[in-house]
Amino acid sequence: MQLTDETHDLLMRVSTATLTTVLFKHGFRNAFMQGVRRINPQGGNLVGPAYTLRYIPAREDIDHIGVFEDRAHPQRKGVEECPAGAVFVIDSRGDASAASAGGILMTRLWQRGVAGAVTDGGFRDTPDIAKLPIPAYHASPSAPTNLIRHHAVDLNLPIGCGGVAVYPGDVIVGDGEGVAVIPRHLADAVAVEAMAQTAFEDFVEEQVRGGRSILGLYPPDETTRAEFQSWQKTHQAI
Amino acid sequence: MQLTDETHDLLMRVSTATLTTVLFKHGFRNAFMQGVRRINPQGGNLVGPAYTLRYIPAREDIDHIGVFEDRAHPQRKGVEECPAGAVFVIDSRGDASAASAGGILMTRLWQRGVAGAVTDGGFRDTPDIAKLPIPAYHASPSAPTNLIRHHAVDLNLPIGCGGVAVYPGDVIVGDGEGVAVIPRHLADAVAVEAMAQTAFEDFVEEQVRGGRSILGLYPPDETTRAEFQSWQKTHQAI
Amino acid sequence: MQLTDETHDLLMRVSTATLTTVLFKHGFRNAFMQGVRRINPQGGNLVGPAYTLRYIPAREDIDHIGVFEDRAHPQRKGVEECPAGAVFVIDSRGDASAASAGGILMTRLWQRGVAGAVTDGGFRDTPDIAKLPIPAYHASPSAPTNLIRHHAVDLNLPIGCGGVAVYPGDVIVGDGEGVAVIPRHLADAVAVEAMAQTAFEDFVEEQVRGGRSILGLYPPDETTRAEFQSWQKTHQAI
Amino acid sequence: MQLTDETHDLLMRVSTATLTTVLFKHGFRNAFMQGVRRINPQGGNLVGPAYTLRYIPAREDIDHIGVFEDRAHPQRKGVEECPAGAVFVIDSRGDASAASAGGILMTRLWQRGVAGAVTDGGFRDTPDIAKLPIPAYHASPSAPTNLIRHHAVDLNLPIGCGGVAVYPGDVIVGDGEGVAVIPRHLADAVAVEAMAQTAFEDFVEEQVRGGRSILGLYPPDETTRAEFQSWQKTHQAI
Amino acid sequence: MQLTDETHDLLMRVSTATLTTVLFKHGFRNAFMQGVRRINPQGGNLVGPAYTLRYIPAREDIDHIGVFEDRAHPQRKGVEECPAGAVFVIDSRGDASAASAGGILMTRLWQRGVAGAVTDGGFRDTPDIAKLPIPAYHASPSAPTNLIRHHAVDLNLPIGCGGVAVYPGDVIVGDGEGVAVIPRHLADAVAVEAMAQTAFEDFVEEQVRGGRSILGLYPPDETTRAEFQSWQKTHQAI
Amino acid sequence: MQLTDETHDLLMRVSTATLTTVLFKHGFRNAFMQGVRRINPQGGNLVGPAYTLRYIPAREDIDHIGVFEDRAHPQRKGVEECPAGAVFVIDSRGDASAASAGGILMTRLWQRGVAGAVTDGGFRDTPDIAKLPIPAYHASPSAPTNLIRHHAVDLNLPIGCGGVAVYPGDVIVGDGEGVAVIPRHLADAVAVEAMAQTAFEDFVEEQVRGGRSILGLYPPDETTRAEFQSWQKTHQAI
Repeated sequence: MQLTDETHDLLMRVSTATLTTVLFKHGFRNAFMQGVRRINPQGGNLVGPAYTLRYIPAREDIDHIGVFEDRAHPQRKGVEECPAGAVFVIDSRGDASAASAGGILMTRLWQRGVAGAVTDGGFRDTPDIAKLPIPAYHASPSAPTNLIRHHAVDLNLPIGCGGVAVYPGDVIVGDGEGVAVIPRHLADAVAVEAMAQTAFEDFVEEQVRGGRSILGLYPPDETTRAEFQSWQKTHQAI
Repeated sequence: MQLTDETHDLLMRVSTATLTTVLFKHGFRNAFMQGVRRINPQGGNLVGPAYTLRYIPAREDIDHIGVFEDRAHPQRKGVEECPAGAVFVIDSRGDASAASAGGILMTRLWQRGVAGAVTDGGFRDTPDIAKLPIPAYHASPSAPTNLIRHHAVDLNLPIGCGGVAVYPGDVIVGDGEGVAVIPRHLADAVAVEAMAQTAFEDFVEEQVRGGRSILGLYPPDETTRAEFQSWQKTHQAI
Repeated sequence: MQLTDETHDLLMRVSTATLTTVLFKHGFRNAFMQGVRRINPQGGNLVGPAYTLRYIPAREDIDHIGVFEDRAHPQRKGVEECPAGAVFVIDSRGDASAASAGGILMTRLWQRGVAGAVTDGGFRDTPDIAKLPIPAYHASPSAPTNLIRHHAVDLNLPIGCGGVAVYPGDVIVGDGEGVAVIPRHLADAVAVEAMAQTAFEDFVEEQVRGGRSILGLYPPDETTRAEFQSWQKTHQAI
Repeated sequence: MQLTDETHDLLMRVSTATLTTVLFKHGFRNAFMQGVRRINPQGGNLVGPAYTLRYIPAREDIDHIGVFEDRAHPQRKGVEECPAGAVFVIDSRGDASAASAGGILMTRLWQRGVAGAVTDGGFRDTPDIAKLPIPAYHASPSAPTNLIRHHAVDLNLPIGCGGVAVYPGDVIVGDGEGVAVIPRHLADAVAVEAMAQTAFEDFVEEQVRGGRSILGLYPPDETTRAEFQSWQKTHQAI
Repeated sequence: MQLTDETHDLLMRVSTATLTTVLFKHGFRNAFMQGVRRINPQGGNLVGPAYTLRYIPAREDIDHIGVFEDRAHPQRKGVEECPAGAVFVIDSRGDASAASAGGILMTRLWQRGVAGAVTDGGFRDTPDIAKLPIPAYHASPSAPTNLIRHHAVDLNLPIGCGGVAVYPGDVIVGDGEGVAVIPRHLADAVAVEAMAQTAFEDFVEEQVRGGRSILGLYPPDETTRAEFQSWQKTHQAI
Repeated sequence: MQLTDETHDLLMRVSTATLTTVLFKHGFRNAFMQGVRRINPQGGNLVGPAYTLRYIPAREDIDHIGVFEDRAHPQRKGVEECPAGAVFVIDSRGDASAASAGGILMTRLWQRGVAGAVTDGGFRDTPDIAKLPIPAYHASPSAPTNLIRHHAVDLNLPIGCGGVAVYPGDVIVGDGEGVAVIPRHLADAVAVEAMAQTAFEDFVEEQVRGGRSILGLYPPDETTRAEFQSWQKTHQAI
């Protein structure tokens, strides 16, 4: 199932907070990655289908400096094969004591049109990554080469990242708060509901800034619902 | 016991570092919340009496999406009843895996004249909160609705927050470093002592920038004490 | 063994990411401090030999407020005796629940020409330290006086900091990512190798920005190696 | 709502593993206390309604050694007032660095006919408690008096313990694995379902020990269901 | 490469402490699972090739109670297909908040001749497992069904367990201390070296019990080496 | 200052729970090591002056397998020089991922008459140590050689262990609950007070087992105090 342009555009305009509420209404309690934050403040929001890389713990005889000579090495292969528009999501077992990837690979992902990169470990060269326009999310900066801790083992299998299940093709959404994961078959419905909720929250925010109490407003009672319907007629969906 | 305007103004001009030293001299070793930081860099300092909200773990049958319809729900009630000038302090058991509150409630607190908000969990809509003028402190950003993890159970009971006891009415002080708690009956005395210590540290800082050793200066020997007294005569308390 | 000006200057121009890779090639897997980050964004890079202070847990009868009157108190003595150009490295057992040092001591270190300060605990007065030009690294802001948790016990012994062994004289390098430790006898060799690696990565970055695949480029195959040699002739080492 | 003798007796015969599965079928995912284990191997299983004590962080001026002279001190009052047959459940904020209670209070609870005691902190005098017949559950042994870390603040309010919500009257069940919490209104139904599940698992265990595959057996297909019905006729419920 | 009977028997007679030292001599620093301990004190030592199961985080729509009806469910399939003599090793991401498996599956593994089971999460029904003769290792007891946290995703891929890489076929060794992992191609050599080291340590232990200093003995100087050679002639390898 | 036989004998008869209460009355809040437990259930209580070993993180070029050939290696030297009757206390920075020491060194300590051993890391060969009569306390079993993580750096300096300051000569007391540290100059006074408190608690325990309420008893009112005085006359101090 493809991520449509409409859904992509809607998801670029909603927050992860709104998305996790919509997902909660669909029965999903665990859709926000724990402890993962954006490196580049100017990175902008992130939306795209997940392409995954899995790390397991490194082993000294396998994970030596020569390993990257192998063009089939999953980390390097993944960086070259992750589709344009997709999000490169790395299961680093929440271990940021060595890097999941660094500035050169991130530059290559950006050049290839990849939408962004996410790890529950750490990236290296973060002062450089902070200046790239491709959104990158991690747990904390980590200078050491991945070889001291991580072994890239396979590509595009289901993984965990930040405590959340990520199946290849799930829709990854990142904003200034963090990263949410939408099961791919729900992406269209969730995007529409989240956009509607966002419009309503814009209305509420305006009302609250005007001095109104949240009681009866948020969540809305009947009167509020009617007011919002009127309000919507005079406000283009943002 | 009321927080007087004089004490409020003094506390706006001292740091949490100075306050914790003064409190240490009064026998208090545990007055600084661990792991709690300011979201909004332009938020300014925070001073006010504590008004508390307590969360316990959520339970699926009680903490469903309809719960906010109830106007007596402690989170929503607290946001409407926290007095102007007070600080809304939330015991989230140090759990930032779901939000303690979000942007709309924070906007309402600000509109109502509440001085600030503190949780040892996480707030959601943090990119929005970062732009509000009301100081907000938390452990880390957390998009998910509080329902997945937190149940708001009661208001204005003694709580723990960031590992520190907070009794309703205790004076909360926040600066760019974090949040300190002053037992309410000591607020006036501590404020005066902290202001005096701040003046002395301004003098020390000036001396050190002029090249002077800290030995005999910080802490002061007799000579330094005399120097400081002269210095004070020529410097209005800042 | 002295830190030469040449080595110092080279190390100011390389990243901790590059250094940890070079150290990995020399057999060192644990050279980057975990969980330690720069307070002052304008602090600039940090290079200098380590001068160490060791903390053990505080004890109420020993660590009272009068203790700083003693001019031989290791924290105060260390601040006055740490050589110009050196880095003041503090073993705080990774405990940031009380401060390792504060703004006045940091100002004094800066005035004395000390290159920087590092702790695996926390500094206090961090809003002030953030404005100082001396680079300071810690785990997290911590307002409380060190007396509530830390006892300064001795100076310039081998310590651990951020999980890494630091022997007095080891070369400390800090950048926007964090802090690396180079065994002193390897500093010259590592600096030269890191500079060479940096030049190569500048070339790679330029190529990648030009749209080239990383396969065969990073790590380089024979063709790439030749290209880089040509490239170097036309590019002054940065 | 009372805990009936029938439900009590059923719950004494089922495991917390079975109970959490039954609760999962009712939509409850968070019913097992994390990190809480039994001190006394001969303690036997624990069943009873919750009577709660809440701790917040201690404060030096309030939590001094004289505090226990006050007969209204919630810890001491709770030990004397917890009903016979009930379970004394303590919210210690998961902090075992000071004791939640010790051997003498546990002896008193036992003498008063209290069914057991649970904390998510630590008990002291654990070598003595290990010999008492009253089941006691905690996170880890903790010798220091509660005064250094805990302030007993109130009795029989809803609390969190081991990450689970505990409302007064909820049914607490402990076995050799740990402690589960059953919402009081579901206790009867859950007990009956758990007993039925236990009978089925006894059948399955017998079959598996006889060499049978789990496929089609656990969970059962139609054939297995029929076999179990026959088996039940020849086996008295255990 | 097969695990020979000779190697199996040698490995049953050496400790994980000795094995990790031998592996260290071969350049392996990370061969002992962290935080994993034996449930059944009478379980005896564990030796066998690894057969692996991987969990990722659960998702509510996929991990419902009906999922075990599927005979291809990896957890159930793995329990039926793990070869006799092999060790069932589960990557639970170090998360013991829900069970990795329980008593019935463990009984089935035992009946099928599987050598043992290891998870870095928790098992349920641990009071029952403690009585089974099949050695089982985990982090801590965990009653809740795996569905609330874990999704069994695939079988016999390389995984991490307790922070150690486990490739299918690697030789797992467990004793009363914990679990070590031997890369399969080294199993024969490591077993022989470990047996030799064990014999030497038996000699040393005897000497130390006789009052001898460890200096010159452990590690041995030339004299000691000669003594050991004589000692060996009179002692059958144990 | 020597540990007298009288004080030693008193301390063998009191619990760490009682000791920490007595130390709290003297103003010490942090006298019990966190997370440290006894390996050998039959080890008996432990009393003796501290002799300390300090570890810092290992470094690959310094901490190789040949290092133990050096008779001045602090770990081996310490094991041979720790005085009979003393307690060998190791600062392992709370890191149990590699062993602090193992069975052979523990046997040698026992043979040399050392009273016991304590680390806040882990020991290896714990199944063997569990059978030795010398009490040994640690955080958790750890098979790997210390070389992979720890460098023994010096002997008999003040250290931290389990979060508590340990100065050489401080009196270490261990029981079935854990390990307390008494500042050496207070050992005699604390021992006497703890013995008196123990007698009183024996009286209280007897009363409580007889059905008496703790109110007025524990802590005692005037009546109880008088009763205890009478009781004492008829009971030899145990």
